[in-house]
Amino acid sequence: MGLEVILLPEELKQKDITNTLVVVIDVLRASSTITTALAEGANSITPVYSPQKARERIESSNYKEALLGGERKGERLPGFDLGNSPLEYKNNIIQGKNIILTTTNGVRTMEIVQDAQEIIVGCFLNVQAVADYCLSYPNDILIACAGDRGNVSLEDTVCAGMILELYDNKKERKKYQYDDSLIATQMYKKYSLNLFKIMKDSIWGKHLLQIGLEKDLVYCAQRDIYKHIPVIVDGSIVVKK
Amino acid sequence: MGLEVILLPEELKQKDITNTLVVVIDVLRASSTITTALAEGANSITPVYSPQKARERIESSNYKEALLGGERKGERLPGFDLGNSPLEYKNNIIQGKNIILTTTNGVRTMEIVQDAQEIIVGCFLNVQAVADYCLSYPNDILIACAGDRGNVSLEDTVCAGMILELYDNKKERKKYQYDDSLIATQMYKKYSLNLFKIMKDSIWGKHLLQIGLEKDLVYCAQRDIYKHIPVIVDGSIVVKK
Repeated sequence: MGLEVILLPEELKQKDITNTLVVVIDVLRASSTITTALAEGANSITPVYSPQKARERIESSNYKEALLGGERKGERLPGFDLGNSPLEYKNNIIQGKNIILTTTNGVRTMEIVQDAQEIIVGCFLNVQAVADYCLSYPNDILIACAGDRGNVSLEDTVCAGMILELYDNKKERKKYQYDDSLIATQMYKKYSLNLFKIMKDSIWGKHLLQIGLEKDLVYCAQRDIYKHIPVIVDGSIVVKK
Repeated sequence: MGLEVILLPEELKQKDITNTLVVVIDVLRASSTITTALAEGANSITPVYSPQKARERIESSNYKEALLGGERKGERLPGFDLGNSPLEYKNNIIQGKNIILTTTNGVRTMEIVQDAQEIIVGCFLNVQAVADYCLSYPNDILIACAGDRGNVSLEDTVCAGMILELYDNKKERKKYQYDDSLIATQMYKKYSLNLFKIMKDSIWGKHLLQIGLEKDLVYCAQRDIYKHIPVIVDGSIVVKK
């Protein structure tokens, strides 16, 4: 199969991914927040879908110092230490901490792909590092866009297309198995010169703008400010060694 | 909501569509075959997902003259009267007949959207008629791309984008609720000048080419050769009056 894109995690159902690397893309904002939190010194991030389970998890946690992070509808949950803004995840708050994170699309996607051989997290912030890792991976690779509340997401589609393009530039592979890959490439070509415009055109980006989170969008539209890759190990996300 | 596109029928799950018109798009080839069969004089087409159920249906049928049509992997099923090529559905064979049709993506989509207020069938062959009907429809409208074996389909995406563009040209609506709609519009703009190129770029189009069905692709890439709209009434597809 090589490297392929799927625009919605539902496409994975009925596919055997046990020998496949899956790259989870949720640009706004789970992937960007996870990538940033690890860069700022968090020890690990544990993705949990339900806010209630996240609360139970932290209460029963063996971690000495855990923090509760997450959002619904873009806003921090009541009683949580952190929301889902990458800009909140600063070194002085999260250094050495284990973060229990609950978000909608990104975490749901991680649950759907849990049978994959390996699961890593990608976004614009670490896109070249992800493409390079894909180039070195010996088996099939699937870029799984998290989407937006069950629908396709523009920013995830463009980011997937960017990884595909960076990969194809080195491997000169131009044949796809899924039209999703072709569409992602075309959408990347349209938006490659102005990543911030994606955020203004996308439905979820518009919503985050409306609730005052323009700084998040500017931040998440940056390319290659990090070189590490978040990877899921035993249910928690850590820096890939 | 107005008019929106979804690139995969799975996106409909958890959405209330009881007050919505759904346009099912399966360009290669269920939508094109259904549209053609009705133009060539078929009385009705009954979509049935399973080939076995299609056989049972025809055996227990009250129809005086019914025909069994359908395909798997692009090829006619053993013992069936017709495959899923629109070019087989000629007047001298199907005039006045009731056709039991089994295909994969298109029929599956019709099952998923069965709670819609009204379900019509669209393709390039009747795209302007579909857009005009959408313009006259008083409630919300969802263009549901059937996709390709669980993945997104290029030809359905472009056709959905074309309907959206024809609609927007009259209503001057430029705001979408789903990024799917934006992506469909962009993909339509890329391919609008050469519909046959879609067929050569799409994965399913390539497969049909490989099994010798180029004539079908040329046929399905024609625009506006029909002005009627297929609509589902009591489980069967007939010409909308």
